[in-house]
Amino acid sequence: MEIAGHPIGATTFAVIAGPCSVVTADQTVRVAQRVNEAGATMFRGGAYKPRSNPRSFQGLGDRGLALLAEAKAQTGLPIVTELLDVRDLELVLAVADILQVGSRNMHNAPLLKALGQTDCPVLLKRGLAATIEETIFAADYVRGEGNQRVVLCERGIRTFESSYRFTLDLTAVPILQERSGLPVFVDPSHAPGRRDLVTRLSKTAAAIGADGLIVEVDEHPDQAPCDGPQQLRSEDFASYLREVYRVAGAEGRRVLRATEPESASRSG
Amino acid sequence: MEIAGHPIGATTFAVIAGPCSVVTADQTVRVAQRVNEAGATMFRGGAYKPRSNPRSFQGLGDRGLALLAEAKAQTGLPIVTELLDVRDLELVLAVADILQVGSRNMHNAPLLKALGQTDCPVLLKRGLAATIEETIFAADYVRGEGNQRVVLCERGIRTFESSYRFTLDLTAVPILQERSGLPVFVDPSHAPGRRDLVTRLSKTAAAIGADGLIVEVDEHPDQAPCDGPQQLRSEDFASYLREVYRVAGAEGRRVLRATEPESASRSG
Amino acid sequence: MEIAGHPIGATTFAVIAGPCSVVTADQTVRVAQRVNEAGATMFRGGAYKPRSNPRSFQGLGDRGLALLAEAKAQTGLPIVTELLDVRDLELVLAVADILQVGSRNMHNAPLLKALGQTDCPVLLKRGLAATIEETIFAADYVRGEGNQRVVLCERGIRTFESSYRFTLDLTAVPILQERSGLPVFVDPSHAPGRRDLVTRLSKTAAAIGADGLIVEVDEHPDQAPCDGPQQLRSEDFASYLREVYRVAGAEGRRVLRATEPESASRSG
Amino acid sequence: MEIAGHPIGATTFAVIAGPCSVVTADQTVRVAQRVNEAGATMFRGGAYKPRSNPRSFQGLGDRGLALLAEAKAQTGLPIVTELLDVRDLELVLAVADILQVGSRNMHNAPLLKALGQTDCPVLLKRGLAATIEETIFAADYVRGEGNQRVVLCERGIRTFESSYRFTLDLTAVPILQERSGLPVFVDPSHAPGRRDLVTRLSKTAAAIGADGLIVEVDEHPDQAPCDGPQQLRSEDFASYLREVYRVAGAEGRRVLRATEPESASRSG
Repeated sequence: MEIAGHPIGATTFAVIAGPCSVVTADQTVRVAQRVNEAGATMFRGGAYKPRSNPRSFQGLGDRGLALLAEAKAQTGLPIVTELLDVRDLELVLAVADILQVGSRNMHNAPLLKALGQTDCPVLLKRGLAATIEETIFAADYVRGEGNQRVVLCERGIRTFESSYRFTLDLTAVPILQERSGLPVFVDPSHAPGRRDLVTRLSKTAAAIGADGLIVEVDEHPDQAPCDGPQQLRSEDFASYLREVYRVAGAEGRRVLRATEPESASRSG
Repeated sequence: MEIAGHPIGATTFAVIAGPCSVVTADQTVRVAQRVNEAGATMFRGGAYKPRSNPRSFQGLGDRGLALLAEAKAQTGLPIVTELLDVRDLELVLAVADILQVGSRNMHNAPLLKALGQTDCPVLLKRGLAATIEETIFAADYVRGEGNQRVVLCERGIRTFESSYRFTLDLTAVPILQERSGLPVFVDPSHAPGRRDLVTRLSKTAAAIGADGLIVEVDEHPDQAPCDGPQQLRSEDFASYLREVYRVAGAEGRRVLRATEPESASRSG
Repeated sequence: MEIAGHPIGATTFAVIAGPCSVVTADQTVRVAQRVNEAGATMFRGGAYKPRSNPRSFQGLGDRGLALLAEAKAQTGLPIVTELLDVRDLELVLAVADILQVGSRNMHNAPLLKALGQTDCPVLLKRGLAATIEETIFAADYVRGEGNQRVVLCERGIRTFESSYRFTLDLTAVPILQERSGLPVFVDPSHAPGRRDLVTRLSKTAAAIGADGLIVEVDEHPDQAPCDGPQQLRSEDFASYLREVYRVAGAEGRRVLRATEPESASRSG
Repeated sequence: MEIAGHPIGATTFAVIAGPCSVVTADQTVRVAQRVNEAGATMFRGGAYKPRSNPRSFQGLGDRGLALLAEAKAQTGLPIVTELLDVRDLELVLAVADILQVGSRNMHNAPLLKALGQTDCPVLLKRGLAATIEETIFAADYVRGEGNQRVVLCERGIRTFESSYRFTLDLTAVPILQERSGLPVFVDPSHAPGRRDLVTRLSKTAAAIGADGLIVEVDEHPDQAPCDGPQQLRSEDFASYLREVYRVAGAEGRRVLRATEPESASRSG
């Protein structure tokens, strides 16, 4: 499966990184530059935010899309962003290289069908209480309309344990790959809800054989309007990525850098 | 809260009954007449069906809405039906007296907000892994836009137990009532997935203090395109309703019959 | 099945009531007298307490058994108490009319087998994450050794919901009855962890068709060394029991009072 | 913490391997020799088996302990075996270098206290629905009696997902380490219930920072009286161990081989 010029799945390993929410042009572009220099594959950023509480920050909406377009113009990184409302499809398609469907929308059949009628790749997150079978059915809602480029994403399921937010279900990764024939990514940020566990969980995702990661990184996470405690600091991202790419490489994966690392090009 | 001329909540008990899916005009009207004669409060029927598997029956869509309109014309029963796609809102509003939001859409904020901008009452089902707090937040998405007439509905949560489909969480009923200030109904059909447990679960719902039920009834459930095994047979509905209304009455609730029962009017 | 002179199951309804822990002779005897006068069927009291935290109150042990014996001597009520350690079997057998196995011991095969070799009835609580099938297997550990008098007890399962302690799974009651052929009781106290929900849950248990209840009642619950917030006050127990017995009676059950109520004998 | 001459935890990585159940002397000794030659740290084998169904194979009991003693005599490997019944403590202590407490006994306080009064190290498995807090409380039951050598073990929790037996909760590993100060092992065999996922899950356990593994290996798993489908074949164990030790080594762990590998000594 090729997405934005990258071969995704099977023998490669991709990292999609960026802030939970885009808030200002400066923040968005600076984080995009950082993750680009560090060697990420694509840039993610939230314009429309799915929130349990209607009084929580809901994202910048279409103004956020403009910031993502700016980040893409500056860095060349492909853009991954979430579509919340089927009526915003055209707007989001104009900016996104991958349309993300969040776990709360995994059962939203009209949204999935509408995405199936585009030719834009879809990153489909497993619902927080969705079985493996239901997750594949959701992909089938997209594929059944014609669009075959679906990437699944394990992001943690809801269990009785309350010491962290969701239980990252790494066993699901090889089973989803085997049963769906699709690439499977892991989101290591939302489940623990703690920055200090993100590196370890990212490495376990690489060790289990995931095809990539989608990870939250921000400049000043502690000032972020949402999910601050779980976001990596952009200044730590390069060393994070080295550790993760080392494990992915040891598992026989070719890592997909949008830009070759400076040291590599120097030595070349 | 008044809905379709009925005072809902606190001191009354309502029963919304009808088939999982409307399939033909004959079936729809006959079931509506049966539940009307038996003393139900409103009629339910699915035109748009939320299904996990895209290859399962998805409902008749707008043709189904026409069947519901016919049932209303024949019986006078208020109509409860599910809105799956926010783009169908106007179509569904033309027929529905209560718009149902299914458990798979409880986290669909754009849909909830759109409903909040109508003045049509909303029956909001708890998500299959939604906490009590998240369920009330979903109601707040509707209420925050201005529409205060939200009825919550417990329909079973997902647990480890696999002897039935979902675990009906009756403890949630008084807690949801207390924390939200809203009426709380129970769906006794989907959780057990077995017709023979529906009467018992309906009585427990009345005993716990629920404000009403939404229950599936069909003429020939074993020929239904979905959820056949859990639907009551329409010929059994009158005796079902007597048992449930007896418990609700013993709990101090006034039962809301759309039509007075024949025996009552004869004896009157 | 006859236990302590009472026919248990099918057409009758029993209520086992008493404090979480026995603490003093005065408390134990006074609560026993209260529940006896109100019309309970048996007396329960904890001498050995299963606690998650080793630093929590662990019960009076064998001194507690002496208090239970005193309560029995004063009221004639049969005694239900928990056996925690298989090495205490003889001691507990000397006092108990029913040996209780707590949910934490449902998978304790050596304990279950030892009980199966006695002729003392066993009240076996479902484990907090035990399936219906595993619960019946646990009963089979007892029955396989010869002792057929096992009463199952639903006490709430562990789910993602954190607004209360455990999710009372009332659907399990008829399924356990059907599959095991055994009487099934409900513990309405531990799951909600809140006194004000105990009456409602007890009534739903009667409505679903349970064969009885085991409920916590104490004189001064707010001073109790454990589980205070969920225990009924003994002064409220008579009105509680009237409400519960009314529902059980409406469901066609004959209620099992150890002592006929004073008003009844006066009127007789 | 030193166990059987090995420093366990923090900077080392141990692998305990052997059959689910010991069945014959030949099988036991041969598997022990294989895992020893491959470089495992200790030998495991079940004499007393905790089974949900009383009609399932329950282990050889004390005859099984004799087989374990024989395996130890032949290979010198330290022995890890499960204690099911507190009354068997002396018998099992005579053979075991580590006493295992299974997940079904994690809440068995009398058993835990009895182990706390020995000086034998304890491998304590997390209960299948035990929170992290409760797991540490269980360790405190042992430590509170004086025995400080407790190793915790994550082995999968019970969730709604039914595509595999238990959901391996790798996030719990660093949290348990941090909160308890104890070494934390992972059992990669019981959760997936499928041999072909065991290697991947073992590598993720090493990547997350676990202090070791306890894994099931048998000669002819498909003839095993229990858990056949999840046991590694002993002929595959050496290559399995190389892969796992490679990840552990990359994570900075010194692997603990009971015997130096032949190739290493030859090349030395």
